[in-house]
Amino acid sequence: MPPAILATLSQALIDAPLSREAGPLQRQLHDRLKRSILGGHLAPATRLPGSRVLAEALSVSRNTVTAAYDLLAAEGYVHSDRQGTRVAALSRPAHVRRAGAKAAVPVTASRLSDLGTMVPRGHAAAALRPCVPALAQFPLADWRRALDRAVRRGGPAGLGYGEPLGQPDLRATIARHLGLSRGVRCTPDQVVITEGAQEALSLCARLLTNPGDTAWIEDPGYRGAKAAMQTTDVRIVPKRVDAEGLVTTAEDWKHPPRLVYVTPSHQYPTGAVLTVQRRLALIEQAMRHGAWLIEDDYDSEFRHAGEPITAMQGLVEQAPVLYLGTFSKTMFPSLRLGFLVLPEGLLAPLERPLKELLRGGHVYEQLALSAFMESGEFARHLGRMRRLYRDRQSCLRDALTRHFRVPHSVEGGHSGMHLTVRLPSRFPDVAIAAAAARYGLSPVPLSGFALHPLPQDNGLVLGYGNTPIELYEPYVKRLSQLARTAEVR
Amino acid sequence: MPPAILATLSQALIDAPLSREAGPLQRQLHDRLKRSILGGHLAPATRLPGSRVLAEALSVSRNTVTAAYDLLAAEGYVHSDRQGTRVAALSRPAHVRRAGAKAAVPVTASRLSDLGTMVPRGHAAAALRPCVPALAQFPLADWRRALDRAVRRGGPAGLGYGEPLGQPDLRATIARHLGLSRGVRCTPDQVVITEGAQEALSLCARLLTNPGDTAWIEDPGYRGAKAAMQTTDVRIVPKRVDAEGLVTTAEDWKHPPRLVYVTPSHQYPTGAVLTVQRRLALIEQAMRHGAWLIEDDYDSEFRHAGEPITAMQGLVEQAPVLYLGTFSKTMFPSLRLGFLVLPEGLLAPLERPLKELLRGGHVYEQLALSAFMESGEFARHLGRMRRLYRDRQSCLRDALTRHFRVPHSVEGGHSGMHLTVRLPSRFPDVAIAAAAARYGLSPVPLSGFALHPLPQDNGLVLGYGNTPIELYEPYVKRLSQLARTAEVR
Repeated sequence: MPPAILATLSQALIDAPLSREAGPLQRQLHDRLKRSILGGHLAPATRLPGSRVLAEALSVSRNTVTAAYDLLAAEGYVHSDRQGTRVAALSRPAHVRRAGAKAAVPVTASRLSDLGTMVPRGHAAAALRPCVPALAQFPLADWRRALDRAVRRGGPAGLGYGEPLGQPDLRATIARHLGLSRGVRCTPDQVVITEGAQEALSLCARLLTNPGDTAWIEDPGYRGAKAAMQTTDVRIVPKRVDAEGLVTTAEDWKHPPRLVYVTPSHQYPTGAVLTVQRRLALIEQAMRHGAWLIEDDYDSEFRHAGEPITAMQGLVEQAPVLYLGTFSKTMFPSLRLGFLVLPEGLLAPLERPLKELLRGGHVYEQLALSAFMESGEFARHLGRMRRLYRDRQSCLRDALTRHFRVPHSVEGGHSGMHLTVRLPSRFPDVAIAAAAARYGLSPVPLSGFALHPLPQDNGLVLGYGNTPIELYEPYVKRLSQLARTAEVR
Repeated sequence: MPPAILATLSQALIDAPLSREAGPLQRQLHDRLKRSILGGHLAPATRLPGSRVLAEALSVSRNTVTAAYDLLAAEGYVHSDRQGTRVAALSRPAHVRRAGAKAAVPVTASRLSDLGTMVPRGHAAAALRPCVPALAQFPLADWRRALDRAVRRGGPAGLGYGEPLGQPDLRATIARHLGLSRGVRCTPDQVVITEGAQEALSLCARLLTNPGDTAWIEDPGYRGAKAAMQTTDVRIVPKRVDAEGLVTTAEDWKHPPRLVYVTPSHQYPTGAVLTVQRRLALIEQAMRHGAWLIEDDYDSEFRHAGEPITAMQGLVEQAPVLYLGTFSKTMFPSLRLGFLVLPEGLLAPLERPLKELLRGGHVYEQLALSAFMESGEFARHLGRMRRLYRDRQSCLRDALTRHFRVPHSVEGGHSGMHLTVRLPSRFPDVAIAAAAARYGLSPVPLSGFALHPLPQDNGLVLGYGNTPIELYEPYVKRLSQLARTAEVR
């Protein structure tokens, strides 16, 4: 065979010699040849040595060579015919590389990088991290038993995709549960199982908006809702929150939005409760202007004072409300099961789109959760947690009163698993949170929840869900000290 | 108390009397009063009877009444002061209801309803349904053991959110696995764990496009990819597929897209393999024009002839390729774990957006999967399945040759778990599939994969992954008969 090729090949093999250790020889030979071809060292139409010749030259079996040639042919790097094996004509990556990666980074991505200060969330068990339930108190053994039963019941079919909109059992159980506990009026068909509340939000943002539409979001408010909106071309309009929840004026409604995101039963993060007057006004305006209300019934299960206030969804018949919830806190975050309750009017138009988008899945988990709820284990767990969080909250309040030596006001806390501590702006929350992270504490700065933070949007959101009582005193003392250190004089 | 109110109340209670069976009396009383207020039967400023009076009138305990009043006050339906309890001023839902639900259904939803003929997917175990692996052959017991170990290893912390971009163990394992088996060049940081391939697609569509951008998709092609694009405002441009895969001309590139979705190793549904010439040309053009290639390395693990062709992602350094895959077929669909391999250039710009959007979760499943892959159980399972699918395919081919008495050509099948049977257009595939569904068979009509079906886009996609060999003869005979019945003369 022509010396040039021998040279090239031996070069390729000197660069990276074949070795019995580095996997199948034929694969190694194939890779060398491929690289020489792609690198342009073996020019198009070059005839490769016959398999016997090359096998001898490399002292490998002839089958090794033919196998390598076959794969190269299958991939289109070479053509084989009666005359032998020739290198195919390829555009050389050498050119390609020179062109460089001039691909732009699009706006959606950059919009998402601008949702307010990002503070390291800390690991799941980080102290004082909001929205994490008491992981160690979850009845994992009972849950695993429920899963085992579901696996036995579901059989191998449970390994399949399952129903795109969710397993019928779970949809029915959730509809019943919401009717009884939250006054939500819905049939099982209106319930769609989602990957936690986040996918429910994403579906609302993606399915209910047209280009140029606006969405009102609470400011300060839940970052996840903004993130979901930011991936669409909907224009986000932040609306302020006061002690009675989301504030919207008649003036506002002169430019009606397509979507309004609201957390009525426990505004996140301020903990305000949307008054019934405002709820009814929202519903009325939404109906007048063809807007959709997204009711995130956040933390409603953990009301610490009185009975839970019933949901907006059930307040008025035909209310244009998409009601969503998650089991991340009532069960555990890693489960990633949530739900979206569609208004009757959207059942028909959204069924097909949802079936195109959703894949179901987690069939055993869905069956197990349904059984867990029907058997009363879920309610018992909620009861235990409600008591636990109530205790933890009052202890955290005490600790703050006693040991947080900085002017502050504690807000919210009539439900859920976090308290919001407002601070004068001379105690910059971002600085305090960043410093706290170094001690394994994960309070979240209040200003991080606001798109346009005002001076009063300064403070710390403290989660007590997964942090045991005995640690409150040392942690609060630490935060107090860090706050004083961070004070701007 | 004024007779009017007594009348109203008793009316409310005649309509729906309190009953010990229907849950707590206070909640029932609260609901009646609430309905009367919302219904306008109790006008604003109306004074409600004192708790003792009403308690006697209803023969319930006084606590029951006070509890109901308290909740009504908490919700803002009534005000209580020294003068007693008065109905608050509310905008009446009567008005609201009249306004009606004039909320429009947006374009994205309607676009999704227009992705081609929808045919009932049938349940997970439906015969001949494409893309469903052999569920009964999955080593469920081994997997459950791996999960148990993961639960013990992860402890309660594993119930938490976990890492938004995926558990480090699994990301590292996948990077290693892809390097060895697919020639993908990546570090663990480039690997993002997703909810199956569908979320990976959705992330690409949402994070990499600007309004007005176009995305090229294979036609016929995977519906899920179109669905993911349709929820953004990107304009979908279908590109035809031939025996060598996606066809794109220099002319096409005069209007370059932002995204190109391609299934190079096994075009879905035609089964064509994208030649290396076309792969290199795509990469070169994408680099020149700042486009992103989305490589869905669909079914590459189940190659039935020769060694798997290595991925586009590793073909050229710095290739602008987003490589995605799923464990739905190598493990099982209900697991809903997939991954997205980002190009190095997108790591920095996308890290923050991804952290805002993703919530992690399924921590035990991720740990278990990583261990399953490291222990070699995954590879053993793949080996078993590769042999199984090879047998099933050849038996299905035989059955088609022998018993499918309709002019047809069988396409693809060098890998994966489906065969595409092209039919003359006088045998309308949608009609045949619909008829087959009545016999519990779920072949998918080829035309359903095309946005703009041509006459040749007519046929049946037959999945053999989850359908045992002994059933091929009767099923193919059935399909053959249904096809002849459906023939248009």
